[in-house]
Amino acid sequence: MPDITAVTHAQNIRYDRKAEALYIIDQTLLPGEEKEIRLQTIDEMVEAIRALRVRGAPAIGICAAYCMYVLAKSIRTEDRPTFLKRLSDYGQQLDAARPTAVNLGWAIREMMRTALEHVHDTRGQMLDALYERAVVIHEDDIAKCRAISEYGLSLLKEGDGVLTHCNAGPLATSRYGTAQGPFLLAAERGMHIRVFADETRPLLQGARLTSYELQRAGVDVTLICDNMASIVMKNGWVQACFVGCDRVAANGDTANKIGTSGVAILAKHYGIPVYVLGPTSTIDMACPDGDHIPIEERDGEEIKTMWYEKPMALPEVKCYNPAFDVTDHELIAGIVTEKGICRPPYTKSLKALFDDKK
Amino acid sequence: MPDITAVTHAQNIRYDRKAEALYIIDQTLLPGEEKEIRLQTIDEMVEAIRALRVRGAPAIGICAAYCMYVLAKSIRTEDRPTFLKRLSDYGQQLDAARPTAVNLGWAIREMMRTALEHVHDTRGQMLDALYERAVVIHEDDIAKCRAISEYGLSLLKEGDGVLTHCNAGPLATSRYGTAQGPFLLAAERGMHIRVFADETRPLLQGARLTSYELQRAGVDVTLICDNMASIVMKNGWVQACFVGCDRVAANGDTANKIGTSGVAILAKHYGIPVYVLGPTSTIDMACPDGDHIPIEERDGEEIKTMWYEKPMALPEVKCYNPAFDVTDHELIAGIVTEKGICRPPYTKSLKALFDDKK
Repeated sequence: MPDITAVTHAQNIRYDRKAEALYIIDQTLLPGEEKEIRLQTIDEMVEAIRALRVRGAPAIGICAAYCMYVLAKSIRTEDRPTFLKRLSDYGQQLDAARPTAVNLGWAIREMMRTALEHVHDTRGQMLDALYERAVVIHEDDIAKCRAISEYGLSLLKEGDGVLTHCNAGPLATSRYGTAQGPFLLAAERGMHIRVFADETRPLLQGARLTSYELQRAGVDVTLICDNMASIVMKNGWVQACFVGCDRVAANGDTANKIGTSGVAILAKHYGIPVYVLGPTSTIDMACPDGDHIPIEERDGEEIKTMWYEKPMALPEVKCYNPAFDVTDHELIAGIVTEKGICRPPYTKSLKALFDDKK
Repeated sequence: MPDITAVTHAQNIRYDRKAEALYIIDQTLLPGEEKEIRLQTIDEMVEAIRALRVRGAPAIGICAAYCMYVLAKSIRTEDRPTFLKRLSDYGQQLDAARPTAVNLGWAIREMMRTALEHVHDTRGQMLDALYERAVVIHEDDIAKCRAISEYGLSLLKEGDGVLTHCNAGPLATSRYGTAQGPFLLAAERGMHIRVFADETRPLLQGARLTSYELQRAGVDVTLICDNMASIVMKNGWVQACFVGCDRVAANGDTANKIGTSGVAILAKHYGIPVYVLGPTSTIDMACPDGDHIPIEERDGEEIKTMWYEKPMALPEVKCYNPAFDVTDHELIAGIVTEKGICRPPYTKSLKALFDDKK
């Protein structure tokens, strides 16, 4: 049996109730070092999210929920309106740390809603409710990832090759992951899936995190540079592409790690289906299409100097460094959620997911 | 005036006749260090080509021609058949250093042909002829690059944006370059072209060499990761893609740096024309199509560890690292040579280039 527990139980986000402390694995140090850091102040939290010490849309949401609890505990006033105002201010600061993923804002709103629901309770009761809400968000994600992985795996057969981009495994979520979850499930069941992992420049999440998680779990993974996806597809080595998502618009347009739209266009050219995997919390029905998704632009130093011993370009060279791009819904064969697989037209199938809720 | 001489006169390959010494700029050290190394032995030459200290299809050809001259001088026998056998053996060793570019084999054959033409002359006369042939190959490339750059520039208008991949500038050729030559010409003439340079993983020729050459020459260049080409095209920022070539088959299929086929597929999706720029010596009429072009596969360590302080993936993770891919002729709007711009169908237009010769 492959040692899947080594990955899925290495908890990327962990609240130790005895120590009253929130820990995350600093993902920027992987794969070289597996180190936990503690988040105590709003500044530490914002920095950790912005610097991608915690990353992956679902993981950011889970982390933000625990952060809101930790911050709520730190607000010492007994005046309830002041408490709520301060918590809301903290929430806005967290929310501004990264603009693209919808889960961050969603988790913060859930925590604020919980605080408001308990506005007439004692401080202790309210804090307990906030803690429980964070745990539910966390456990919900585990259950959702498991369901997404099952639905995703149903799209594959023994011996298939799959290309994936960036990281949407346990580190990016809670357990199993979304886009990489089916590969972990397959490995657990002794099924052979050959995965090609794009290294995902500039921050190399595919090399540092995806190939690390999959290799440790006994998955047959081959690391490639992003620009090798075309030849891998041309070689006939992949039968599907599985990618995660940071925000899905109501029409199915999907924001995900920069380069995802390129993968999808190549896949269309070679006749390979592209599946987006993510929880329904990533679907933003208030956002009509991809043009309405804000795209975070990051520092060019990530491209020129971040990982290198010596700068890889002249200091004065300009860079353009968008963190995400939008994949047109027409390029997506299916959107795999915890509730099932949505097919085009997405305006209908995504809407149906939420109509079910009622 | 932008300082174009700083680039175009930094000679990547230089034979110093007084010192009887062949020098190349070690391109693996750029942009941090501009250092010349001397090539004296066949082992040094093969290593320099294999390790990409000299790279770019035309530059490899020029270098190989001078190498053959240096090697010929080192053969001390007066027995002519023995001399020819040894020189031919050296040529085969050089040719085997890299399999994809056609210019390497072409330059070696030219030098062997020259030696055979002078088989009845004195040793001194033969060596002089070999030296002159190498110089002609070098000067020919300068003239060809200039012509290619002129034809390439004729495809652009003031204010256009162009995406380029890998390096096909002065360092990859002799002067001006092929795919990057039009940008240098434009800068000389005060014309504004906005260039987007793919960094070109894994060896970062776009970051280290292209953005370096263009920035130094006063060209408006923006460095991006390879996976950002799709969003740059979607943003409407580029009106054409200019790429070099390592081997063009008789039907127009083009081998170039890994990732070029991906750029071409994206460009087709966004309705942007792709132009391949290279000398006619890169066209291999004996090669019917891309399936017949051998693709060099290189060590996975180039992906995982080469430029990084710490390994970017677990040591046991497999890599696939092809150095080139083949762009289907159907994706190419034109092939720009020193003799003019070939348009589809390439089976006719490329053949016409060589019919002209007769």
